[in-house]
Amino acid sequence: MATTQAAHENGLSQDTVLIMMPIDPMQEVIDRLQNKFPGVKIRWQNTKSPTGVMRSEDMAPELFDGVTIVCAYLVPPASLLPKVRFVQLTSSGADQCIEHPLYKQAHIPFCTANGAHPPQIAEWVIGSWLSHQHQFDKYRAYMTDGYWEPAYQVRVQDSSGLRMGILGYGAIGRQCANLARALGMDVVAFTMRERPTPESRKDDSYCEPGTGDPDGLIPSRWFHGTTKSALNEFLAQGLDILVISLPMTAATRNLIAKEQFDILAERKTFISNVGRGGHVNTGDLIAALEQGLIRGAAVDVTDPEPLPPSHPLWKAPNLLITPHVSWVSSNYSRRLLDILEHNLTALSGVPGTSFVNLVNKELHY
Amino acid sequence: MATTQAAHENGLSQDTVLIMMPIDPMQEVIDRLQNKFPGVKIRWQNTKSPTGVMRSEDMAPELFDGVTIVCAYLVPPASLLPKVRFVQLTSSGADQCIEHPLYKQAHIPFCTANGAHPPQIAEWVIGSWLSHQHQFDKYRAYMTDGYWEPAYQVRVQDSSGLRMGILGYGAIGRQCANLARALGMDVVAFTMRERPTPESRKDDSYCEPGTGDPDGLIPSRWFHGTTKSALNEFLAQGLDILVISLPMTAATRNLIAKEQFDILAERKTFISNVGRGGHVNTGDLIAALEQGLIRGAAVDVTDPEPLPPSHPLWKAPNLLITPHVSWVSSNYSRRLLDILEHNLTALSGVPGTSFVNLVNKELHY
Ligand SMILES: NC(=O)c1ccc[n+]([C@@H]2O[C@H](COP(=O)([O-])OP(=O)(O)OC[C@H]3O[C@@H](n4cnc5c(N)ncnc54)[C@H](OP(=O)(O)O)[C@@H]3O)[C@@H](O)[C@H]2O)c1
Ligand SMILES: NC(=O)c1ccc[n+]([C@@H]2O[C@H](COP(=O)([O-])OP(=O)(O)OC[C@H]3O[C@@H](n4cnc5c(N)ncnc54)[C@H](OP(=O)(O)O)[C@@H]3O)[C@@H](O)[C@H]2O)c1
Repeated sequence: MATTQAAHENGLSQDTVLIMMPIDPMQEVIDRLQNKFPGVKIRWQNTKSPTGVMRSEDMAPELFDGVTIVCAYLVPPASLLPKVRFVQLTSSGADQCIEHPLYKQAHIPFCTANGAHPPQIAEWVIGSWLSHQHQFDKYRAYMTDGYWEPAYQVRVQDSSGLRMGILGYGAIGRQCANLARALGMDVVAFTMRERPTPESRKDDSYCEPGTGDPDGLIPSRWFHGTTKSALNEFLAQGLDILVISLPMTAATRNLIAKEQFDILAERKTFISNVGRGGHVNTGDLIAALEQGLIRGAAVDVTDPEPLPPSHPLWKAPNLLITPHVSWVSSNYSRRLLDILEHNLTALSGVPGTSFVNLVNKELHY
Repeated sequence: MATTQAAHENGLSQDTVLIMMPIDPMQEVIDRLQNKFPGVKIRWQNTKSPTGVMRSEDMAPELFDGVTIVCAYLVPPASLLPKVRFVQLTSSGADQCIEHPLYKQAHIPFCTANGAHPPQIAEWVIGSWLSHQHQFDKYRAYMTDGYWEPAYQVRVQDSSGLRMGILGYGAIGRQCANLARALGMDVVAFTMRERPTPESRKDDSYCEPGTGDPDGLIPSRWFHGTTKSALNEFLAQGLDILVISLPMTAATRNLIAKEQFDILAERKTFISNVGRGGHVNTGDLIAALEQGLIRGAAVDVTDPEPLPPSHPLWKAPNLLITPHVSWVSSNYSRRLLDILEHNLTALSGVPGTSFVNLVNKELHY
């Protein structure tokens, strides 16, 4: 113990960490990092502005002096950060920085915040599903008139024994599965690549302890592929709810359109989209809701975004729309700083530690 | 195996089972029971009427001829059932029949349907909690005007690390705990009797496999008692949500009143009542919501019930009211018939089986 400590005592003693986040400095985090990495310097810039997020250009130039480690959503210009040796992104993707000169330097590792948002997004998925199934909107409307509906008129289906299909079984999909399992649901998963062995079903991105399905043990069946027929076979599995938790790529645009709604009509599958709006054909979604092909939908993402006030999607029946906010949570910072701490530990050279959420700069995630 | 079978071959061959439920006969259930218990006769009466539930007096008298086993909510008059030797209630309590002459015959076992409703009630609890935390009502209102709220204005707290207090840790409370655990919450439990040992924390009532907490392993702390100070100590545990899943007894009436709301104000505890309306003082609940002492509430049960259209509770802020329907589920019959089948197996004398949910006729549950 003592020797290990000694060997890494100077791990970050020459480093200056700049944390850029839209919240006030969290003193206990700063104290913990300074305690854990003796000699490290920590600077914290609250990037919140009245209209959104501050730009680096509007910050005091001294802020960047000597910075070797940066934790940010938008990485400041390379000219301000000549000494940077590690970047922790606060986003779950790296798409906003793939053209950044620092990103292009192969020797500078970038890590994402993947895993900081699944708990709240899965809550959003399950909460909106249960709201639909238990008809809370109807009861809220009845409250206006003080109407007490007799129980013998009521039809409710609980989730026990129902089936959830998860299109994109990554960090988000796995926590949806964890909640679905507690509800007694059957879960079937879809990934791009085949996952035929127990080893291949694991996911090593950051996962809040006790959540998710890091070992891939929950699904009763796994589907995969990039063809329409693979997708359609998956959609025909008698799904009560389809969760869309895919990344947006050329292959995942417009995946769910008329042909797929016709398959889902068999079971009147509920659709929950927390990926990107473009996975679903908006016109076909409106038609499916209006014609009752599906029992309902909840979408946190739309196409286009923001959805214009006059867009017909706002008026589609049995639909909940939220404005791309399912990722928002007061715990986001805590989890992100947990990831940062983990990666600083790896960077400081503590044996047996390695980066979590390291971006593959060829695949960009 | 063969001898056991032979020994119990005539277990129910002299029996006639009368199932009285507000649904049409489920042929596959009848077939399964007739298959499992050779010679048994099964009659099924759909008790649904346009205004609620049919009375025995309105049914054909032949229906009751020779009946030895009855499965019902309201047990028909003893005069119609001279040969009855077992009663399966379709309700979770036995209060509606404690004055019934058949109930008073010590040798006729009565079993309840305890455990047929926790999955749907726990879904109701978690669904209404997540709806509140994720502000779905606000977003539904924004949909009317097509308003896309910018994410940087949004404040949401996910449940990971929050604490749920469960007042009445029985069948319902335990499935609420199971879901809360999947959300990453800490759970604290309150029971009437002390449960200091692992053995004492078990619950042997019917439990759908994979749900609940039959072994009592989930709570991080257990509280108990019947005094105000025991209750108040429990309520002071920094609860983010208080679930009330108690039976209605003299001791549980008006448990949550002004003094308790003042304790809950510390954390602005959300209140979810699925027990009976009378556990909570209605006037004090309205005041607590109006004054913002608590962040919100969801109540499936009210005092009085039905709540009159003009009652001020309908208009209290941050409140969801449903008309005592959280127990309704299309799976209720399946679970109830599973309990019936289990108890018929015990009655037929298969070794190693015993009744589940057997009513203690001194305690009446
Ligand atoms: N609504 C919001 O606020 C919000 C917040 C965060 C993220 N998101 C969205 O959610 C997405 C998923 O996030 P995550 O953290 O769960 O990602 P992740 O861990 O990378 O998982 C993505 C999953 O999608 C699968 N996939 C990728 N391309 C596919 C294709 N062409 N066909 C079928 N499956 C495909 C992947 O399969 P393989 O494992 O085989 O690669 C993987 O299972 C993000 O990319 C983002 O777009 C939304
Ligand atoms: N909203 C609805 O549609 C609906 C449907 C079904 C039931 N319910 C209500 O929910 C209640 C609970 O159902 P359940 O199946 O979960 O019951 P249960 O399994 O019998 O559990 C009841 C729990 O309450 C505790 N308790 C009893 N008296 C208490 C007291 N004076 N102080 C503190 N705790 C006390 C019990 O403690 P001990 O273990 O120490 O006895 C037990 O933990 C039912 O009695 C009914 O009123 C409502």
